[in-house]
Formats: sequence, structure tokens, C-alpha cells
Amino acid sequence: MLIVKVGGGKNINWGYISEDLTSLIKKEEVVLVHGASSRRDQVAKKLGVPTRYVNSPSGYKGVYTDKKALEILSMVYAGLVNKSIVARLQKAGINAVGLSGVDGRIWEGKRKTNILSQENGKTKLIKNTFTGKVETVNTNLINLLIDNGYLPVITQPAISSDGELINTDNDRNIAVMAGALRVKKLVVLFEAPGFLKEPSDESSLLRKISKKDLPSLMRYAKGTMKKKVLGAIEAFEHGVKTVYWSDGRIKEPIRNALAGKGTMIK
Amino acid sequence: MLIVKVGGGKNINWGYISEDLTSLIKKEEVVLVHGASSRRDQVAKKLGVPTRYVNSPSGYKGVYTDKKALEILSMVYAGLVNKSIVARLQKAGINAVGLSGVDGRIWEGKRKTNILSQENGKTKLIKNTFTGKVETVNTNLINLLIDNGYLPVITQPAISSDGELINTDNDRNIAVMAGALRVKKLVVLFEAPGFLKEPSDESSLLRKISKKDLPSLMRYAKGTMKKKVLGAIEAFEHGVKTVYWSDGRIKEPIRNALAGKGTMIK
Repeated sequence: MLIVKVGGGKNINWGYISEDLTSLIKKEEVVLVHGASSRRDQVAKKLGVPTRYVNSPSGYKGVYTDKKALEILSMVYAGLVNKSIVARLQKAGINAVGLSGVDGRIWEGKRKTNILSQENGKTKLIKNTFTGKVETVNTNLINLLIDNGYLPVITQPAISSDGELINTDNDRNIAVMAGALRVKKLVVLFEAPGFLKEPSDESSLLRKISKKDLPSLMRYAKGTMKKKVLGAIEAFEHGVKTVYWSDGRIKEPIRNALAGKGTMIK
Repeated sequence: MLIVKVGGGKNINWGYISEDLTSLIKKEEVVLVHGASSRRDQVAKKLGVPTRYVNSPSGYKGVYTDKKALEILSMVYAGLVNKSIVARLQKAGINAVGLSGVDGRIWEGKRKTNILSQENGKTKLIKNTFTGKVETVNTNLINLLIDNGYLPVITQPAISSDGELINTDNDRNIAVMAGALRVKKLVVLFEAPGFLKEPSDESSLLRKISKKDLPSLMRYAKGTMKKKVLGAIEAFEHGVKTVYWSDGRIKEPIRNALAGKGTMIK
């Protein structure tokens, strides 16, 4: 089984991804996970509540998720983007089923009601947020769908043990999910050829990284890339053998990733 | 098996519905279908594209669904409202799984690209709409979930045979679905005690209606109630034995409906 996680950037080419998946799923079981950040930001802006960010004391950038932002997350991730991806896959002949982490408690975690954020050198307490971290995965539901010929297409939000919707991190969720499903390979597609030592320079691509060197990458990682590094570290802790970071804008993006043409981490 | 369809009005009490479902699902298999019209109208207005209506030459009111309205439909029905209902049911101990008609092609139909609308006594052609009518149902996926202890919670949009998202009518979808699943009882909950001969007068409730008298109800039915009458007529054509129209605002709404306290049609 393979987990393919696709970022929510606006240049991701879902046509190429679904084309690639049609042949891939004949040979391998796949679980697809996707983001929707660029559409979320668009809709949030139109609704007059632009996306705000928080910076954790440990240096990670996250989305500030109050009740309003949570509603926009549910709308855009689980509604607009998930259903449009599922329709596209269905059109390509793939029997996709879109789900959020809430459905059947696929992604269940703990809500962090209060979080700390660094702003202008000061640490601020932010109350009543709907963020959290996934801890358990409903592998029964995922396997049930796969065993019956469906491709699960999973996205935010997740659910807390108390039944609240929570915003969690896809890069970390796939690590937990890989552990639960005993998946050994993760493909992570985004808007770059792989891990770039210098984000603006595509020739600074690192083709191979040893998993023990992941922590040292943190100093080169910017923005959301830091969470990808963290997710990869956690994936190896959960028994994953290879993580592929690769380009979601090009033809045959998954095959390309698995062929080691992006960044391969072992 | 029982299909329960809940309208999208703002006074529907989902607390009472989920309470009622927790005991009901111990005795009977249930498929839940829901609307989200009031939240859709709210979000559409905030996004600057308020919901518009069309009036078919045969006298039915429908929602004008262009690309923009379709996106709002997907966001609000399959995202915002579906996931909030699923979370609420999960909190009540029901293992709910939310799906749109797109997922696994649960609701597949024909797209009507061009429709006619009556406006000020004139018939107008409206092009490029994303509406349609469900013709086939993926009963395998629904049964797979039910047989494994999940409660399917289904909503708009549906999918066309060409893989496009389409806006269809829940009242008519449950008729087709009942036929496919061989369901004999439909419970339809909304913001009234049942069928009122005079919509503003709750004492004009009709407690029992013979299915052969349904066509004659059309002259009393206003707005969306006309589609409910049409849906009921179609449900009987699909083998349904009893349709219950009842109040979604009160305690034990489903038990109340099944006890014949709303309108029972046989």
C-alpha cells in the first residue's frame, strides 16, 4: 500500500495526478490525502476573514483556526476541493470516495484549545482554537473501502475524541496513518521538484537524503516545508521505509517520485 | 431499512434528531439524507452571489445552478453542513460517514445543461446549468457501509455520467434510492408538523393521505412543498409503501413521524 499526499497549491496538476493514478492503482493499493490551502485562502478572503497564521515556539507555522476559520476549512477542504477531486478521478475511471477525518472518525485526535504563538519576539496565548493532532486512525474503514475497489480520498478536518471538528496537519497525519496501515512508502507532492536547499533555486534540489540527516534539514526548510520535514521524521518513527518528496505540477508525478527523480529519503 | 431525509431549514433540531437516531439504529438500518439550504443561502449572500431561483414550466421552483452556485453548493452541503452533522452524530455515539452523491457515484444522473424558466409570464432559456436528475444509485457502497456498522449521511452534489458535479433534488433522489435499496418507508422531516392545506395554519395539518390523492395536493402545495409531493408520487412508483412527512424541530422527530403524528401517506 502507498500513501500519496498532495499539497493544496494552485499549480498542482490534478489532471496529471489522476492520469498517473489510473495505471498505478492496477498494481498497488493507494490512499490519497490532499490539501486545499490556496482555495481556502481565496474563499476566506472573499468571506472577509483572510487566513491568519500562528508561529509555534518550536518554530512551525500553522493556521490560526477559530470557529470561523474552521467552518471555511470544512467548506473548502471537505466540500469544494474534495468533491472536485473525486469527480475528476471518477471521470478518469477511478472509483474514488471522498472523506474527511471526521467520517467514521478516520482521523481522531486531541484538540489543543489553547496554543502559544510567537509574534514580534513575544509569546502570546491564543485561546479557543480548533487545532489538534491526530492520534488514532480508523484503518477498518480505509481497508473496507480499498478491499472493495474504492480509492479513499481523505482530507481535513479531523475529529477530536469529544466529537469536535479540528484542524490538523496532513504532513503529520500521513505519518500516523502510515503506522496504523503499515504503509512503507509515502509520496508527498507539492509545487517544487523536491527538497531545495535554497527555496528559490530549483538546481539546489537534494536527490537523496538519509533519514538520520532529516533534523539537520530544518535550517534550510522555510514555511510549510518545516512541517514536511517533521512529518517525514515522524513517518520513519512509525515504520515507514522511504519518503518521496516530489513535483505535483509535472506529468506522471507519482511515477516520477517513485523513480527517485525528486527527493528520496531513506 | 429506513430512509430519513432532513430538510435544510435553520430551525431543524439536529440534537433531537441524533438523540432519536441513537435508539432507532439499534432496531433498524438507516440511511440519512440531508439538505443545507439555509446555510447555503447565508454563505452565497456573503460571497456576493445570492441564491437565485428558476421556475420550471411544469410549476416547480428550483435553484439556479451555474458554476459559482455549484461551488457554493459543494462547499456548504458536502463540506460545512455534512461534516458538522457527522461530527454531531459521532459525538452521540453513532458511527456516521458523510458522503456526497459524487463519492463512489452514489447518486449518478443526467446533467440538464439547458433549462426553461418562467419569468413574468415569459419562458426563458437558461444555458450552461449544472442541474440534473439522479437515475442510478451505488447500492453496493451504501450496503457495504451499513453492513459494517456505519450510518451513511448523504447529501448534494450528485455526479453526471460524464463526471461533472450536478445539483439534484433530494426529495426526488430518495425516491430513486428507495427503489434501488428496496426501502419501503421514507421519513421526510422539515419545518412544519406535516402537510398543511394552509401553509400558515398548523391546524390545517392533514394526518392521513391516500397515495392516489397526492396529485390533487399540488394545488395546496407552495414552494418546495411541491417537490415533496412530486418526490412522494415517485417514491410510490419505486415501490415505497409509506411516506411520513413530519416535524424536524421537535423531540423524537423520527419516532413521532413513524407514529403517524405528522402526515402519513399510504
